[in-house]
Amino acid sequence: MEKLKIVETASYIPPKTVTNDDLSQLMETSDEWITARTGIKERHISLGENTSDLCTKVASQLLQQSSWPVETLDLIIVATMSPDSFTPATAAIVQGNIGAVNAVSFDVSAACSGFVYGLDVVSKFMTGRQGMRAMLIGGEVLSKVVDWTERGTAVLFGDGAAGVLLENNSADSYLLASVLKTYGDQHEKLTAGQTQPLTEFPPQTSTVIHPFTMNGQAVYKFATHAVPETIIAACQQAGVTVDQIDHFVLHQANARIVKAIAKRMKQPLEKFPLNIAKYGNTSGASEPILLDELVKNGQIKRGQLLVLSGFGGGLTVGTQIIKY
Amino acid sequence: MEKLKIVETASYIPPKTVTNDDLSQLMETSDEWITARTGIKERHISLGENTSDLCTKVASQLLQQSSWPVETLDLIIVATMSPDSFTPATAAIVQGNIGAVNAVSFDVSAACSGFVYGLDVVSKFMTGRQGMRAMLIGGEVLSKVVDWTERGTAVLFGDGAAGVLLENNSADSYLLASVLKTYGDQHEKLTAGQTQPLTEFPPQTSTVIHPFTMNGQAVYKFATHAVPETIIAACQQAGVTVDQIDHFVLHQANARIVKAIAKRMKQPLEKFPLNIAKYGNTSGASEPILLDELVKNGQIKRGQLLVLSGFGGGLTVGTQIIKY
Repeated sequence: MEKLKIVETASYIPPKTVTNDDLSQLMETSDEWITARTGIKERHISLGENTSDLCTKVASQLLQQSSWPVETLDLIIVATMSPDSFTPATAAIVQGNIGAVNAVSFDVSAACSGFVYGLDVVSKFMTGRQGMRAMLIGGEVLSKVVDWTERGTAVLFGDGAAGVLLENNSADSYLLASVLKTYGDQHEKLTAGQTQPLTEFPPQTSTVIHPFTMNGQAVYKFATHAVPETIIAACQQAGVTVDQIDHFVLHQANARIVKAIAKRMKQPLEKFPLNIAKYGNTSGASEPILLDELVKNGQIKRGQLLVLSGFGGGLTVGTQIIKY
Repeated sequence: MEKLKIVETASYIPPKTVTNDDLSQLMETSDEWITARTGIKERHISLGENTSDLCTKVASQLLQQSSWPVETLDLIIVATMSPDSFTPATAAIVQGNIGAVNAVSFDVSAACSGFVYGLDVVSKFMTGRQGMRAMLIGGEVLSKVVDWTERGTAVLFGDGAAGVLLENNSADSYLLASVLKTYGDQHEKLTAGQTQPLTEFPPQTSTVIHPFTMNGQAVYKFATHAVPETIIAACQQAGVTVDQIDHFVLHQANARIVKAIAKRMKQPLEKFPLNIAKYGNTSGASEPILLDELVKNGQIKRGQLLVLSGFGGGLTVGTQIIKY
């Protein structure tokens, strides 16, 4: 049990919206088809802003909401599967932009589980370090790796960023449990941004990255089994029952996945908030975007028990129990 | 002081070599020019093998050298700035390939400092977890993000992978100190694999990634100051003097940088092993490749004090003191 407190939450969503009807102009699809199968009505697309730009806006907002001098930040982790570049890490760009000169900064790559994997990494850094302060941001500009002619994947993804300020203090908020699992034998089920090694030297072609590919059925099956398994394991680790959980803040990959998990957990759907209609699947940004919405609108209150759960590319899954 | 022991080291270098003379056929350069300015004579280029392929060979070798059943691995981290893809993480692919079903797996992105950043992350995971086992691999296929017509950067980089098996045990080998720093205000000094966000929707172009750009003077100045600073800080943290260090295993970015650091530290050059002539700059793979060479040829012995230091894109720097 770590004395890690979520002190602030913030999010930034790029203004440009693309509706299902907009997409139906580009490919053989319809609002009805997309809504029925995914729960998505529209998504936001970043025009001219890369991942570090979105994350920097979140970082600035977090600092503004808190009274923390930027120099007191010890660690910045960005969880992303759509970094600005191979180097520098997106976290390093954010660190430079906000002037967090004392913050060690790097990216964690675990796709849609990036935020929960990142939270686990932060908690490990905070163990035994009273007063340590960290910023964790999930940020994605997935639109740059979407094939906007491919209806199987293009309808699913959106852009956005959100994050949290975390502190190791002695107050009454804790990370009660953290359960991460990786199923690398299924790594081909969901891919994006694939590169190719050279096949001859000197090379005759320059490097391109490939858009999303997904075996939707396999991911559905994985998520609806792996997420409940990790929730149960995390509840056992935390010494709480599933019934005691106030809110299940799950990765917003697909409304049907979330509903199937609620059913499997025998929990009322009201405990599984959904905002995928507005944003689509924003990968590592989706849990903190939802968390920020629920905190800001007062649904999540101090002292409540949260499940935070991410799942996706890797395949990866991670669930945490947080006393907010 | 963490009870983290480096149990095994291994490396894999792709067979294809490209000499300075080969490069002089492609661009206006010469063996004399490259050797004088970098210390590099040749580099290895991966043909047909991506980063996960190199890392999987290292992982298999590590398991073969140890008596560890693969199921006992708790954590796999790949430090890379040239992952196969945005998702899955390269570590997840390796995990699947070797069947390490119980290992949580993700990538850490901190460029040439990736291996030392990754070692720090592993150490945080191992704190208080007696018997925990981890695999840390630095692997790079940089050739896919090199512009092979641009002599300012093409002469510098090479491909390779290497890694270590780590265990939290009570034996007499320790991570004595770890000092990481990030200088994100200098993030533009070294870039690779840069993406661009969309500028219109629907987009008219597909996403490409851009090759290396580097301000060599700035990186030289950074490295020759930041590395000595972190070595001194790490020695203080460890309670040892710089004179007590047996081997300085530094990132092989440029022989001139390593020599300048040795001079600044007033230490004999013999304590700063160099293998850059054979491999060029392999980014996050360079320290573990060198470490593996020195362990295998008997230069590094159990009980000796090592400095492990990485520096590069971010800009990032990290130094550890290890009692081997």
